[in-house]
Amino acid sequence: MSFHYPDDLSFLSQGLIGQLRKDAQMEWQSFTFHPFVVALGEGTLPEEDFKRFLMQDYLYLLHYARAYALAIFKSDLLEDMRSAAQIVSALLETEMALHISYCQQWKIDEQTILAQPESLELLAYSRYMLDCGQKGDLLDLLVTLAPCMVGYAEIGLRLYHDPSTVRKDNPYWSWIEVYGGDVFFNLLKEGVDKLEDVGRRYGASARYVKLAEQFRMATKLEAAFWYAGKSAVL
Amino acid sequence: MSFHYPDDLSFLSQGLIGQLRKDAQMEWQSFTFHPFVVALGEGTLPEEDFKRFLMQDYLYLLHYARAYALAIFKSDLLEDMRSAAQIVSALLETEMALHISYCQQWKIDEQTILAQPESLELLAYSRYMLDCGQKGDLLDLLVTLAPCMVGYAEIGLRLYHDPSTVRKDNPYWSWIEVYGGDVFFNLLKEGVDKLEDVGRRYGASARYVKLAEQFRMATKLEAAFWYAGKSAVL
Amino acid sequence: MSFHYPDDLSFLSQGLIGQLRKDAQMEWQSFTFHPFVVALGEGTLPEEDFKRFLMQDYLYLLHYARAYALAIFKSDLLEDMRSAAQIVSALLETEMALHISYCQQWKIDEQTILAQPESLELLAYSRYMLDCGQKGDLLDLLVTLAPCMVGYAEIGLRLYHDPSTVRKDNPYWSWIEVYGGDVFFNLLKEGVDKLEDVGRRYGASARYVKLAEQFRMATKLEAAFWYAGKSAVL
Amino acid sequence: MSFHYPDDLSFLSQGLIGQLRKDAQMEWQSFTFHPFVVALGEGTLPEEDFKRFLMQDYLYLLHYARAYALAIFKSDLLEDMRSAAQIVSALLETEMALHISYCQQWKIDEQTILAQPESLELLAYSRYMLDCGQKGDLLDLLVTLAPCMVGYAEIGLRLYHDPSTVRKDNPYWSWIEVYGGDVFFNLLKEGVDKLEDVGRRYGASARYVKLAEQFRMATKLEAAFWYAGKSAVL
Repeated sequence: MSFHYPDDLSFLSQGLIGQLRKDAQMEWQSFTFHPFVVALGEGTLPEEDFKRFLMQDYLYLLHYARAYALAIFKSDLLEDMRSAAQIVSALLETEMALHISYCQQWKIDEQTILAQPESLELLAYSRYMLDCGQKGDLLDLLVTLAPCMVGYAEIGLRLYHDPSTVRKDNPYWSWIEVYGGDVFFNLLKEGVDKLEDVGRRYGASARYVKLAEQFRMATKLEAAFWYAGKSAVL
Repeated sequence: MSFHYPDDLSFLSQGLIGQLRKDAQMEWQSFTFHPFVVALGEGTLPEEDFKRFLMQDYLYLLHYARAYALAIFKSDLLEDMRSAAQIVSALLETEMALHISYCQQWKIDEQTILAQPESLELLAYSRYMLDCGQKGDLLDLLVTLAPCMVGYAEIGLRLYHDPSTVRKDNPYWSWIEVYGGDVFFNLLKEGVDKLEDVGRRYGASARYVKLAEQFRMATKLEAAFWYAGKSAVL
Repeated sequence: MSFHYPDDLSFLSQGLIGQLRKDAQMEWQSFTFHPFVVALGEGTLPEEDFKRFLMQDYLYLLHYARAYALAIFKSDLLEDMRSAAQIVSALLETEMALHISYCQQWKIDEQTILAQPESLELLAYSRYMLDCGQKGDLLDLLVTLAPCMVGYAEIGLRLYHDPSTVRKDNPYWSWIEVYGGDVFFNLLKEGVDKLEDVGRRYGASARYVKLAEQFRMATKLEAAFWYAGKSAVL
Repeated sequence: MSFHYPDDLSFLSQGLIGQLRKDAQMEWQSFTFHPFVVALGEGTLPEEDFKRFLMQDYLYLLHYARAYALAIFKSDLLEDMRSAAQIVSALLETEMALHISYCQQWKIDEQTILAQPESLELLAYSRYMLDCGQKGDLLDLLVTLAPCMVGYAEIGLRLYHDPSTVRKDNPYWSWIEVYGGDVFFNLLKEGVDKLEDVGRRYGASARYVKLAEQFRMATKLEAAFWYAGKSAVL
């Protein structure tokens, strides 16, 4: 990219996360430079697409919180348990309320959201993630959760700092501010630190092939999620 | 229907399974009278659609076997464990080999099948089923597994006995013979007996609302599965 | 009992919890009037027994937190998830630190505790609880967790308010104050409310026999836990 | 040992299983040369102790089968699924019936066995094993299951071939014949092959410390299991 980030993002190109991103390069590109994302930055995304996404994303958060609860269950060390528990609390106590209040700006209330059926994309992604966690150990789970955390931060940071992003009268600018902001950046750093640490302790390099497959599939499912529910097969 | 079955199928309209089918009537109709199914009976389904289905169906069987393995794990009674274990063995030892040899008639070998990516529809359906099983108890799991077992038998029996089904030069007639045959009918009866029995022991009527939701969702996902991979979003 | 509680405890004799306690009367008695408990109230418990208990109890808390994390995973409703998540946070962030600082009064540091092997009693109780949760649904899990929450509150309240409890120079009085205090009483009330509510929604009465078995076994394992590690078979 | 085995047992001292046994040497000794085992070989074990063990062992088999069902669920490869499914079937269809018919020689019927409460030792061992499997991946599970399979074969083979074992009028000779016989030896070889294979694929050496801990704990619990229920704390 031709512009500068205020923060050093080199940690995303190193270690386990760097390798995973590199080996899923094509899928990562499709996810983070998805037409939906480009249209967010340009402010040209049809409102209906965004509202559909917002509602599916809220329903997704419930399962994302369940996945981190599974991470607590799967942990051996108190520090791993605490780290996952803080994410669960943040999701259930803060994030979901913020999401609801953000939705109100778009004239969508909680009732409406909870009445939406789960889309095929949501079901595929959330349940795949949970199944990887159930089948495997803490490392399998955290690797499968990584595209969500890392991808949204990357997208947020890029759109936030890219001078070509439309700021004025872009109805999606406030969304970009959230994922490109400091709070989310700190979550990213903590999350990546934990992933690298668990990776070392659980022998990531000796089991890399499977981890890479799980990361790649989760990334593909993230890409599909932008238009979750749009084709409405369910 | 205007034609007669040689077997008494009234057990499908009674008890827990009768109620579940009735309360998901629309979804059940969409699943069992899906254009894909109609085209099977008429022998007009494009070959490519069938081959794609066959391959995804094989990949699905792996997770279907995992789901019945979970049923063994979740059982309290030896008889429930044995019943689920027999299904697991039948799937892993017999069904999957039959599936492979059937695919060979369509010039698809095992290598080709295993190289297919799991489709969005496959991921959504199989992992939803497994997640219901992990979250809930044996009854939740068996209810979520029921649309697959009951639906394929219903479809097979109907197409097999319906005089309007094309038998001559229908490339799908051999498929219809499998699901409309005695072996599958006996599996159906045993499976429904077990479901009704577990339903009684685990208090199905007192928890019916959630069971009905799980059955309905699984039925919707079965309907979507006929064209699994066709839209190729992944 | 011949003395008065400041709070109304009648909710413990009603509903699902009342029935469960009543049907496990003998085991409940053995647990809550265990010689260990009596000796706590009299201040006559050998210090070594208490210290051994304290250390095993800390190791137990890790699995107790894992069990509530499993409850989050198993929940369908946001309110059930939040309720379990608050317990997980309280355990991991507050309780465990309090436990460590309490242990310091007894000259036991965290290193020493974490170096203790898990006793047979601890393994049996904690893993039984987790297995009931994995096999069953949210209700099975909460019922199996209930003896711990309800029993410690009952014991604490009784010892705290019983005029015959030795207060002066009783080295265990501070322990009694914790479990007989308002904080724990409020946890008890919330926990029982949740249990009753989940019981209604998940059809407790239609599945009562198995729930009662799980409650009874967990109560027996609680009774055995007082002397966890004393016989040192591992 | 000073006597010769007809079969080459050197595979038990090599690879992952060799390392695990070596690093749990003391616990392995306590388990496989337990006074209970010695008394079996001498034919001096009190009958009551053996009968109690037989009954608890039957109840254990149910959970051992559940653990292998979990192994099916946790597998990625069809061959791993099939291998675990064959063990589940063998346990549920053959082993348990053999166990019951063997118990009849000791005048114990199935009713009596199923009426026994699960002992503290049984609960601790079986649920620990299942929890390791739930928390970890297929390798964690197979490692925790290994002491049972390998230990009983080792004990059986040693007692069977040791010239000092009492054969004449030893009421336990028929038990020794089972675990020292060819059928069990073949199970051992297949089981160890699978463990080594999964160990390679799942990066055992990079995660060895935890695997060794799980193996050691399971071995300690096996040692405690010989007198399961004897102290009768539950």
